[in-house]
Amino acid sequence: MKVYFDNNATTPLHPEVKKELTAAMEMFGNPSSMHSYGREAKANVEDARIRVARFIGAHENEIVFVGSGSEANNTVLSLFVCSSRQCIPGLKMRNTIITTKIEHPCVLETSDCLAHRGVKVKYLDVDQYGKIYLDQLDSMLDDSVGLVSVMMANNEIGTMQDIAAITEMVHERGAYMHTDAVQAVGKVPVDVGAFGVDFLTISGHKIYGPKGVGALYVKNGIPYCPFIRGGHQEKGRRAGTENTLGIMGLARAVDMRVLEMDDEHQRLLVLKQALRKGIEERIDDIYFNGHPTDSLAGTLNVSFPGAEGEAILLYLDLEGIAVSTGSACASGSLDPSHVLLATGVDAERAHGSIRLSLGRESTMEEVDYVLDVLPRTIERIRNMSTAYIKGGLHATSR
Amino acid sequence: MKVYFDNNATTPLHPEVKKELTAAMEMFGNPSSMHSYGREAKANVEDARIRVARFIGAHENEIVFVGSGSEANNTVLSLFVCSSRQCIPGLKMRNTIITTKIEHPCVLETSDCLAHRGVKVKYLDVDQYGKIYLDQLDSMLDDSVGLVSVMMANNEIGTMQDIAAITEMVHERGAYMHTDAVQAVGKVPVDVGAFGVDFLTISGHKIYGPKGVGALYVKNGIPYCPFIRGGHQEKGRRAGTENTLGIMGLARAVDMRVLEMDDEHQRLLVLKQALRKGIEERIDDIYFNGHPTDSLAGTLNVSFPGAEGEAILLYLDLEGIAVSTGSACASGSLDPSHVLLATGVDAERAHGSIRLSLGRESTMEEVDYVLDVLPRTIERIRNMSTAYIKGGLHATSR
Repeated sequence: MKVYFDNNATTPLHPEVKKELTAAMEMFGNPSSMHSYGREAKANVEDARIRVARFIGAHENEIVFVGSGSEANNTVLSLFVCSSRQCIPGLKMRNTIITTKIEHPCVLETSDCLAHRGVKVKYLDVDQYGKIYLDQLDSMLDDSVGLVSVMMANNEIGTMQDIAAITEMVHERGAYMHTDAVQAVGKVPVDVGAFGVDFLTISGHKIYGPKGVGALYVKNGIPYCPFIRGGHQEKGRRAGTENTLGIMGLARAVDMRVLEMDDEHQRLLVLKQALRKGIEERIDDIYFNGHPTDSLAGTLNVSFPGAEGEAILLYLDLEGIAVSTGSACASGSLDPSHVLLATGVDAERAHGSIRLSLGRESTMEEVDYVLDVLPRTIERIRNMSTAYIKGGLHATSR
Repeated sequence: MKVYFDNNATTPLHPEVKKELTAAMEMFGNPSSMHSYGREAKANVEDARIRVARFIGAHENEIVFVGSGSEANNTVLSLFVCSSRQCIPGLKMRNTIITTKIEHPCVLETSDCLAHRGVKVKYLDVDQYGKIYLDQLDSMLDDSVGLVSVMMANNEIGTMQDIAAITEMVHERGAYMHTDAVQAVGKVPVDVGAFGVDFLTISGHKIYGPKGVGALYVKNGIPYCPFIRGGHQEKGRRAGTENTLGIMGLARAVDMRVLEMDDEHQRLLVLKQALRKGIEERIDDIYFNGHPTDSLAGTLNVSFPGAEGEAILLYLDLEGIAVSTGSACASGSLDPSHVLLATGVDAERAHGSIRLSLGRESTMEEVDYVLDVLPRTIERIRNMSTAYIKGGLHATSR
């Protein structure tokens, strides 16, 4: 049996997206061209823009198509690079960014880079469930803060933040609000009007659309400077010939989210509950990470002290089960998850954690199969780890 | 009859690329994932990297996959933003960029932006054919120059530069050399070893591959800083989940260039010669722009005094013929082509110019059809322009 429980890393293309891409391959014009080939491509891109905009309650003028969620996040943070220049009218941002300790590497590393360029960066702590402290945000928000960037749903542990409340606080202090909603859009209802955010990041390949395409919501009237410069594409907000195939695929993925999201959410909650209960019943000495209720329906992060996450992953892979030790974007690193560490998990336990992320194709049969394989996998690995003692690990166990 | 003579703007997908994309849609893993889905995706991306590298005589470690040629060009120029920082070992660049007046907007606008950030930018003139003056480059190259960026083949007029000679001069003065080879790669032989360049830009959709993907060649040992930051993808040189579909499509497009490029080059030369000769014979008072011999085989840029380029384009479009007034990336602008102006063409004549760019699907029947339609189109437009007098235009004609 093959089980793909790594939908937070990436998702298979929706069958309707495959159909859309197949049809779109015949349409090759450059949307910037004035002739019929170009106009056809342009019409398709603009139609896609309307559908993506509508999905998050935005106006189509507020959607900028980009090449990835990472590019969108880089674009927003990099506004600071330009904010001291005179070339963009109205682009004056105050010199401090606030973000969290559990953001995606593309936010954390870009923030780190900006810190080398004279921008002050402050990092919000999170509680044991991965929620930020609103009172800490309140105390950090002073007149120097230009932008706050808080991800809507965490990719590793699924914890959701209260973006509407955060945004309200941020706006009261005159700063702009960005949320990386890559893991949230298409899984929970997202309405930019209700949240009030100024910038919001979407990625195609997390919602059964193509890789290599994303969208950045930029609220009308917000000062903006392009990250990739050059052509007049995207109303001068992102240069480079539009990825027509990717954009049309993203819009089709969004269409399908509209139809499937709500039922799927309920179904995933049932599957996750069964998975969680089954793990609890079958395996001793485990810890679930992330918020018990304010969390993505399909995301379950669990620690197995005495078992290395990578070993679990590789043994499960031999049995046809795909899971992750955390963010795919940080894989290959030997460091424990920065997200789990931020929630107060110690390095040992963080190293012994895996993420199971279910998606639209996940079934109860797959959950049952995982519940069959996982207990003996953990037992086997723990048995090899001579230093493993239930409830505590010797320092020599790593 | 439908005739697509705008292959410099974008190209239709090669049938083999469509097949590749169709097959690749079933493979959805994230190349960063450690399980079998991820490893399969990773293997495909790395195989693509080898094929793209081999095509330009590079080592696979020297290829960074990106989202577009524009992103690649932005990446290279933006190294200057980081060059004064301490975070990248060895990344110390001198503070002047030299480029040309006929670059793509993504180079010119990024250069303009850098000029606002304290980088000194110098622009090389070109002669009537669009060639830079090597002696002017020589006189500009002083100890302050960190990077020279000269496009290999111009997108509007097709003129090729002598990149090997330019690179030799640039390296003698201790600067780095970048060439935007988006229009050259896949049309003429490109060997980074022979040219000696440090950076080279490739785009997928100009060579019958997908939009939304490109590649940047970065010579081994050259200091580098990622433009999009975050994940460890592309060996830390470009963050964001790899566009597996796009990358595999690009590599397949490259495979087909290997097989088809040489014969196609000869065929396009014959077609262009027929087109050029037919236009000369059938239409009075015309001027060809670009170099007569050191030029892309499929690119013909011609001025028709007394006829607006946009009007020609739209009338031809009504007859099923797709051409361009210049760069698609600058369309919508009422300014005359900066490339033609740089070659010394006056604004009137620049406004009356169109670009016919032929490609792998172009046929002699299509050339004949254009030679049938174009003369009466020009005559019709010139007749409407009451001020048109052969050999000269009144100032009131615009």
